[in-house]
Amino acid sequence: MFSKEIYVQRRAVLKEKMGSGVLLFLGNDETGLNYAANNFRYRQDSTFLYYFGLSFSGLSAIIDIDADKEIIFGDELTIDDIIWMGQQPTLKEKSERVGVSNNLPSSQITDYLHQCVRERKTIHYLPPYRAEHKLKLMEWLGVPPMYQEACNNFIRAVVSQRNFKAPEEIVEIERACNVTADMHIAAMKYLRPDMYEYEVVAAMEVIAASMNCETSFATIATINGQTLHNHYHGNKVKSGDLFLIDAGAETEMGYAGDMSSTIPADKKFTARQREMYEIQNAMHFKAVEALRPGINYMDVYDMASIKLVEGMKALGLMKGNAEDAVREGAHALFFPHGLGHMMGMDVHDMENLGEIWVGYDGQPKSTQFGRRSQRLALPLQPNFVLTVEPGIYFIPELIDQWKAEKKHADFINYDKVVTYKDFGGIRNEEDYLITEDGARILGKKIPLTPDEVEALR
Amino acid sequence: MFSKEIYVQRRAVLKEKMGSGVLLFLGNDETGLNYAANNFRYRQDSTFLYYFGLSFSGLSAIIDIDADKEIIFGDELTIDDIIWMGQQPTLKEKSERVGVSNNLPSSQITDYLHQCVRERKTIHYLPPYRAEHKLKLMEWLGVPPMYQEACNNFIRAVVSQRNFKAPEEIVEIERACNVTADMHIAAMKYLRPDMYEYEVVAAMEVIAASMNCETSFATIATINGQTLHNHYHGNKVKSGDLFLIDAGAETEMGYAGDMSSTIPADKKFTARQREMYEIQNAMHFKAVEALRPGINYMDVYDMASIKLVEGMKALGLMKGNAEDAVREGAHALFFPHGLGHMMGMDVHDMENLGEIWVGYDGQPKSTQFGRRSQRLALPLQPNFVLTVEPGIYFIPELIDQWKAEKKHADFINYDKVVTYKDFGGIRNEEDYLITEDGARILGKKIPLTPDEVEALR
Repeated sequence: MFSKEIYVQRRAVLKEKMGSGVLLFLGNDETGLNYAANNFRYRQDSTFLYYFGLSFSGLSAIIDIDADKEIIFGDELTIDDIIWMGQQPTLKEKSERVGVSNNLPSSQITDYLHQCVRERKTIHYLPPYRAEHKLKLMEWLGVPPMYQEACNNFIRAVVSQRNFKAPEEIVEIERACNVTADMHIAAMKYLRPDMYEYEVVAAMEVIAASMNCETSFATIATINGQTLHNHYHGNKVKSGDLFLIDAGAETEMGYAGDMSSTIPADKKFTARQREMYEIQNAMHFKAVEALRPGINYMDVYDMASIKLVEGMKALGLMKGNAEDAVREGAHALFFPHGLGHMMGMDVHDMENLGEIWVGYDGQPKSTQFGRRSQRLALPLQPNFVLTVEPGIYFIPELIDQWKAEKKHADFINYDKVVTYKDFGGIRNEEDYLITEDGARILGKKIPLTPDEVEALR
Repeated sequence: MFSKEIYVQRRAVLKEKMGSGVLLFLGNDETGLNYAANNFRYRQDSTFLYYFGLSFSGLSAIIDIDADKEIIFGDELTIDDIIWMGQQPTLKEKSERVGVSNNLPSSQITDYLHQCVRERKTIHYLPPYRAEHKLKLMEWLGVPPMYQEACNNFIRAVVSQRNFKAPEEIVEIERACNVTADMHIAAMKYLRPDMYEYEVVAAMEVIAASMNCETSFATIATINGQTLHNHYHGNKVKSGDLFLIDAGAETEMGYAGDMSSTIPADKKFTARQREMYEIQNAMHFKAVEALRPGINYMDVYDMASIKLVEGMKALGLMKGNAEDAVREGAHALFFPHGLGHMMGMDVHDMENLGEIWVGYDGQPKSTQFGRRSQRLALPLQPNFVLTVEPGIYFIPELIDQWKAEKKHADFINYDKVVTYKDFGGIRNEEDYLITEDGARILGKKIPLTPDEVEALR
C-alpha cells in the first residue's frame, strides 16, 4: 500500500473533477471455482485499489461529494473468521490507513444509497465486469443487469487520472517488469525440443511466485504462436518449432508487467525463421524510435505496419505500394492485432472502463480488420506507460478465408503465402514509459534480436 | 476425458433415479479478475464434467427426461475466436465425444425452458454457487436470486452417484495424490529458516505445474498453522517455527488430491513440538485404523478426539474423563475442525451441493463448536474416497475467549494452556479409499511421524 496521503490526494482530484454526485465503488469479492468456498486467488478491483488501496474482499466505498463524505462499507471479523482465516486489522484501522474516517457495516449500503435517491442525488458507478457486480447493482439500486449503464463522466475522470502514472507507480511497474523479464529469460534458457509447453510455463511462473508475484494474465507459451491468445499448454515441442511466450508478473500492489518473446526450439533459428524475425524486429525498432510526447499511437501502428509490408514485399509475400496496403488493411492478414496498449494496475490498463474511453477519448474506432484491434489511438503524453508488441503470424484459417475471397489480392501473393501456413507466429514485446522528450524502457531488457536470442540459447 | 460410454452410462443412471422432469446443468463460464477478458484459470463445474465431460466455457445442458432428449447448448467459434483463441472441435464433435446427439445455439435455451414451462414439465437445477449462475437462472427462468431453490431430489441423485468412485476415477484421484505427495516432499526438503513462506509455495506449485496439474485449492504454507485456512504467504520463517502445509494437485480432468504436513523450520523438532506431534499422530493412526465399511465417520471423529484429550491430559493441558470431554466439546479448543471430508472432482467433494446432503444424507447437523465442522457423518461405504486430517492448534483469540468465559473449565487447565499460545498448529492429512474390507491409502506416502519428517529434513 502507498502512503495515506496518496489515496487522500487521488480522491481529492477525483472529487474536484466530478464536482457533484455520489460515486459508488464496488470492491471485488472472492470467486469460487467449483464451490463457493474454494476460491480463485483474490484480486481487488483496480479502481478500488487506486482510490482506496485495500486489497480485501467484502468492501464497497462511497464518495458522497454532495455531503462531503467518504465511507467504506464492510464487516468486522467474527471469531469463526479469525479461526479459519486469521486475524486482520479492524475495518476502522484499515480505513484509516487510506485516510477514510467513516465506516459502516456492509448491510447499510442499500439504506445509504436509497437515502441518496430520496434526496435526488445522482449515483454514479463504473461498468460492472463481474457477474457479482451486476447482482449488487441490481440489489442495491434495483437496476436490472441489462439497464446497468455506467456513468461516462465518472469513467473519463478516472481515466484522466489513472492514465498518468505517478513516480511511486512507475517504481512498482518497473518492479513488475523486472520480474517479468526474469520469467522470460528463465524460459528462453530452459526450452528444449521434446519438452511439453506446460513445463516451460512452470519454469516461468515459479520465478514470479518465488518473488511473491502473481501472473498479470494467463501465460501464453506455445508452439502455436499464430493463435494470439493461446492458453493451451499441452503440446510437445518439436525441433524446428518456433516458441512464442507472452507473460507478465503482477506485484502484490497489483501493478503489471507484460512482455513477449519468440525463440526457436533449437539453439538456432532456421534461415526462414530468421528472415521473418528480422521483419518483426524492423517493425519493433521503428515503433520504439517513434515514441515521444505528441505522436498519435495510431500513427506509430501505421509506421510499424508499413515496415511489415516492405519486409513482406522483399520476401515476395506482398506486392504494391506499402502505404496503400496498410491504408486498405492488407497487412492485417499477418498482423491482426494492435501495436500495444496502456499498462498499469491492469495489464490492459482500465480495459474494464472501456477501450473507447481509455484509448480513443470517446471517439469512434475504425472497423477495419486488424486496425480495429488497436487499443490506443491517442497522442502520447509524458507518464503514459504502454506496450510495444508488433507481431507476424500465419493463421491457416484466415489465409484460407482471405484467399478464397481473393481479399486484397492486389497486395498479397497468396501462392507464396500458403507455403508459410505451418510457420507459426512471432511477437516481441517491451514496456515503455513516455518521458518529457521521448521514452524509456521499463525493466531489464530481454533478448530481442535473433543474435541476442541465439546468444542466450 | 473418459470414454463416451462412461458419460452415457452416468446419465442413464441419473435419468433412472430421477424418473421424470427436466434437468438443467449450468456449465461454468470464464471469470474476469480485473476486466472481463483477463480470466482466472478456467474451471468447469464438476457436475457438468461428471455427466458431460466437456471442459469448455459457454456450455449448458438439458436432460429432458419426459421427452427422452439430451441437448448441449453452446456456440460455434467465429473466425475472430479462431484467430485469438485457436481452433477447437465443433460443438457437434464435442457433444458426440460424450454421446450427446442434440445441439442448439446457446441463445435457444430460454425458448426451450419456456416451452417446458408451457408443457407443465418440472425444471430441476442444482444450487447456484457463482454469481453468473444466479444471473442465468434469473434470465432463463425469471427467478430472482433469493428464490432460486435447488431441487433436493436432483441433489440426492447426483450425490448418490458421485459419492461412489468408479475404477477410472480412482486412477485419476491417485494420480492427483501422487503429484500432491511430490509437492509436499519438495517443500519438506526445501524449507529453511529465513525463507519467506511464498518461496515454499513457489517450490511446491512448480511441481504441480510441471506435471500439467493445477492446485486443487489455494495452498496453505504458513508459520501460523493455528489459522486453519491461512492463505497469507508473506511471513519470514524463523528458527524454532513450526511450518504447516496443506496443498493438493488437480489433474487435467479435474480430480483432486489433498494432503497436509507439518515440519520444523529447523532440521529437528523441539521436545515440546515433538510431544504434541506424537499426540496428533496418535489421533491420525487411531482414525486410519478404524476406516472400514459400516463405521460412521462421526464415530471415527470421536475416537480421534478422545486420543487428543488423552494426550492433552498426559501433558497436563486437560483433565477429567476423556469421553465426557469430547461429548461436551471441550476438545474443540484444540481441534476446531472436522476429521476429514469426501474428495473427488472437488477437494471437498460436492460442497456446492450442500454438506447436509453429501455428508449427512439430509439429517440435521450438530451445532456444537468443532463437531459442527465435521463434514461427513455417514457410515463409510466401499468406493468412498475421503481425507483423514486431525489437527492440534493453539489459537490465541479462541483460548482468550474460552478462558474469559471459563468454558469447559472442568476439562481444561487454562493456566497451562496459555503457555502454549505461541505454539502454532499441527496437521497431517492423507487420502483414503474405502475398500470392501478396510481402506487403502491413495498416492505415495509422505513423512507422517516426527522420525520420518526428521529423516527427510
